[in-house]
Amino acid sequence: METKTAPAKRTGGRSALVLGAVKRATEELIEEKGQERLTVPMIAERASVNPTSIYRRWGDLPSLINDIATYRLDPARPLPESGTLRGDLAGWAQEIVAHYRNPVNAALLRGGAAVAGDRESDCLRNRRAEATMFVERHPESELSADRVIDHLVAPIVYRAIFLPWTLDDDTANRLVTELFAS
Amino acid sequence: METKTAPAKRTGGRSALVLGAVKRATEELIEEKGQERLTVPMIAERASVNPTSIYRRWGDLPSLINDIATYRLDPARPLPESGTLRGDLAGWAQEIVAHYRNPVNAALLRGGAAVAGDRESDCLRNRRAEATMFVERHPESELSADRVIDHLVAPIVYRAIFLPWTLDDDTANRLVTELFAS
Repeated sequence: METKTAPAKRTGGRSALVLGAVKRATEELIEEKGQERLTVPMIAERASVNPTSIYRRWGDLPSLINDIATYRLDPARPLPESGTLRGDLAGWAQEIVAHYRNPVNAALLRGGAAVAGDRESDCLRNRRAEATMFVERHPESELSADRVIDHLVAPIVYRAIFLPWTLDDDTANRLVTELFAS
Repeated sequence: METKTAPAKRTGGRSALVLGAVKRATEELIEEKGQERLTVPMIAERASVNPTSIYRRWGDLPSLINDIATYRLDPARPLPESGTLRGDLAGWAQEIVAHYRNPVNAALLRGGAAVAGDRESDCLRNRRAEATMFVERHPESELSADRVIDHLVAPIVYRAIFLPWTLDDDTANRLVTELFAS
């Protein structure tokens, strides 16, 4: 039953523990069973939390998966600063390829894809912000962030979702070469 | 109960009716509720078939959605024959963009993405075969099918999944121009 009294002050400790346990459980289960077989009760059991805690925090499974999918490539991580746009984008693309060569990250991306379409996910917004930062750092180039997304991020994400076995050591450099040839 | 006697000869009529009803029900429910809220019993009820008929034919919901997602762009449809590779690819890309601007097709694509990763889907294999046919029809060009997939199909599919509101009348021509500038 809902009460309208002010909630007791919550420490971050308990909440952060629940968050960590739920994320770990979700990742493990995605790797073991695949994203499409996941259920909230299954995650709750593995994380040793009450299912209602999950529903209260995330609303439903798609929102939870979407949230998890956005948390892996830390937006605060250091980004390449090679001195050239091409070098920066090559380092950045290699990092994204390496990220999605991890099967858990690819599975989370597929989970994010399944629930996408209403608004830009945090994850993609972060990649777009990074692309914008790189092209603005090198105003001598005529590349736009949109072009970087279409010809560098999109093919990596497409392969990660649909053809993960084709993401190899050459993918990032080949795509950057093609981007700069245009 | 399972019997091991030879099955009575089945006419295609009943089977085709079930197939059509299930596909229609799946598409309607994806549009109404979103792919991630679908269940097999929900589809069975809408299609007026027994859930066991669905499980027998498709095994599970992801396989059903994957099958539905592959059936919309008829691989036997006529393809552009403009006389130039650029004209052919522009017409083809426009058709793919138009296909995914239909919200049901974009939702089915997201459903296909959710269950992808083990092998190339029929749908993507068909697009790859078409790209190969176009570049082989114009051996004077140095474009490879892989490059067409990475820089034309991938950005369209990426936008259809994650940024459907950005698929506009210019998308296909812009991407073809960028592909041929490279």
